Amino acid sequence: MFQARTKADTLKELVTIVSTLVDEAKFTIDKEGISLRAVDPAHVAMVDLKLSKDAFDSYEAEDTELGIDVAKLDQFLRLAKAGEPIDLIHDEEKRRLNVTVGNTTKKMSLIDTTGMSEPKVPNLSLPAKVSLKIEEISQGIKASESVSDHIALTATADFFEIICEGDTDQVQMKLSKDQLIALDCEDKVKSLFPLEYFSNMMRAVPPQSKLDMFLGNDYPVKIEFNISGEKGNVTYLLAPRIESGD
Amino acid sequence: MFQARTKADTLKELVTIVSTLVDEAKFTIDKEGISLRAVDPAHVAMVDLKLSKDAFDSYEAEDTELGIDVAKLDQFLRLAKAGEPIDLIHDEEKRRLNVTVGNTTKKMSLIDTTGMSEPKVPNLSLPAKVSLKIEEISQGIKASESVSDHIALTATADFFEIICEGDTDQVQMKLSKDQLIALDCEDKVKSLFPLEYFSNMMRAVPPQSKLDMFLGNDYPVKIEFNISGEKGNVTYLLAPRIESGD
Amino acid sequence: MFQARTKADTLKELVTIVSTLVDEAKFTIDKEGISLRAVDPAHVAMVDLKLSKDAFDSYEAEDTELGIDVAKLDQFLRLAKAGEPIDLIHDEEKRRLNVTVGNTTKKMSLIDTTGMSEPKVPNLSLPAKVSLKIEEISQGIKASESVSDHIALTATADFFEIICEGDTDQVQMKLSKDQLIALDCEDKVKSLFPLEYFSNMMRAVPPQSKLDMFLGNDYPVKIEFNISGEKGNVTYLLAPRIESGD
Repeated sequence: MFQARTKADTLKELVTIVSTLVDEAKFTIDKEGISLRAVDPAHVAMVDLKLSKDAFDSYEAEDTELGIDVAKLDQFLRLAKAGEPIDLIHDEEKRRLNVTVGNTTKKMSLIDTTGMSEPKVPNLSLPAKVSLKIEEISQGIKASESVSDHIALTATADFFEIICEGDTDQVQMKLSKDQLIALDCEDKVKSLFPLEYFSNMMRAVPPQSKLDMFLGNDYPVKIEFNISGEKGNVTYLLAPRIESGD
Repeated sequence: MFQARTKADTLKELVTIVSTLVDEAKFTIDKEGISLRAVDPAHVAMVDLKLSKDAFDSYEAEDTELGIDVAKLDQFLRLAKAGEPIDLIHDEEKRRLNVTVGNTTKKMSLIDTTGMSEPKVPNLSLPAKVSLKIEEISQGIKASESVSDHIALTATADFFEIICEGDTDQVQMKLSKDQLIALDCEDKVKSLFPLEYFSNMMRAVPPQSKLDMFLGNDYPVKIEFNISGEKGNVTYLLAPRIESGD
Repeated sequence: MFQARTKADTLKELVTIVSTLVDEAKFTIDKEGISLRAVDPAHVAMVDLKLSKDAFDSYEAEDTELGIDVAKLDQFLRLAKAGEPIDLIHDEEKRRLNVTVGNTTKKMSLIDTTGMSEPKVPNLSLPAKVSLKIEEISQGIKASESVSDHIALTATADFFEIICEGDTDQVQMKLSKDQLIALDCEDKVKSLFPLEYFSNMMRAVPPQSKLDMFLGNDYPVKIEFNISGEKGNVTYLLAPRIESGD
């Protein structure tokens, strides 16, 4: 049993964050809210997301799992304006999720979740932590896209740096400690990442978000941010590209 | 002899409505205004349109027929701003329509209308009538486009409903009697239509328009609305898809 | 040695004007400012551009030549907002131009200018001069694009005219002497030009610019306008299409 109402932008944020990595996902629903953990088909990135029932205008649920085509849901939600209310109702009998925007209801067949594995969040020891606004790095990421397909993230005690090294050109974005919200790093760390993944994930982050990035040496990056005020939180994990590390 | 001036948006509305169904059309011009009747190449839909001379800032005409490439005219009118005046002059000697926007005149060769048949508006007895604002149904139509290629329109004594049934998903848009401007229907009627035609026709309707839709059982739908205030009126007819009725 | 700071829109204007004709160009830099002369690969059009150091917020330079990939620079500058400051620094050791927008620096490898010829501006005697605002002719040029691939420019003592003659349709844009800023023409002159070049060049002209066009009979057109207030000036030259002149 699941029946909830929220604003369109709350659901759009969530669906954008998830659909960046997967087309289909298993949503775990209980009395406290919605959670979801998914790994992209190439097993390079993971999203771990929780949204409290407090992010909803109304929320009634018993424990259940819903396999949802997030790509289709994303497309449908584009018809809704930001503040428009969205109703979600699980039709258990017909195995559907009914999503209502205005006068229009889309009845989406649920996907069988039997084959969907529950990925485990790896236990990572990441020595550096960088806190910044998403806006601070978006220009640097966009500039990188035409230069190469990988990007290096570096943190030192004094600065955080993005470097994208192409065959002829280089893009560099350096934020000193005082340009960051916080920087907690003793020894220099550096890891290389696939730019397309990193870029898509950063594009899915809602505007004005504060990000916490955890970095190591040739290690995955862990990126945490809140959604819906503080009523939800997201962790993205992205595997490094070891082979071409310098 | 034909020479007229109007606002760009008046002509844009007209051309959008017509070019949705045909690339070329025969415009019948007389002292009272312009009229046009055309059937799309697949003979699935018809447009019947009248625009009074009162919709023009100036209007001088004797009886004539002009074969016009409405796709080209549509493209040219995109250069004009909404309120910009447009001059139309029939150059009889050179068999051209000269259309002037600002300092620019496009001299369009007229198309030979000899082979253009004059379609007859079929005499239909459609028992149900639904009156609504175009905005009420546009979300439902857009949501349907990703689900299937046909759409069912239903009217009962209590509501009007659009249903689009796909292989796995369904879109439903239901407007109760009090959400409509008017509903005049004794027994339930339902017909199935090709979605692409219906969607394109609804997209050509000017914003804020009030539509009268006339429906029967496995029968064409007739859609009427005004243009240019009350100075013009349009009737769209769309044939049903009988084969896959429920 | 070259190091300068300017507003993003100043540099965007310059790069748009140049990248319309070439992907790579040799910038000649001295104490007074930047200049550039380039011919498109098909040798149909030329651009000759000067930008004074007064167009910069800060400017330090010794004589040097920089081979720049203007297509790449154009792409990078799209990340900058109109008023955002841009820093340019020539890194002589690494043979790079470093361009900084906000926190992001793109380090662009310079192109070898050895093979880049220095085109000479031909000495042309063009009897007619037409002065007008770019806005006056943009509608006529856009309307022409769907009609033919060449365009005729005509000047007489009384008017300036653009005519684009297609197989069936014609676009005509006529500006009488009092619709122009100035018209200086004794005998009628007319030349035919490739529309795509002319259209692209006119699109690169900054909005609100005043153009001086110099015309002859089956002769190139010379188009002059200022950029960055009066702190820069541009000359475009476009060769005529003789073969199909009428």
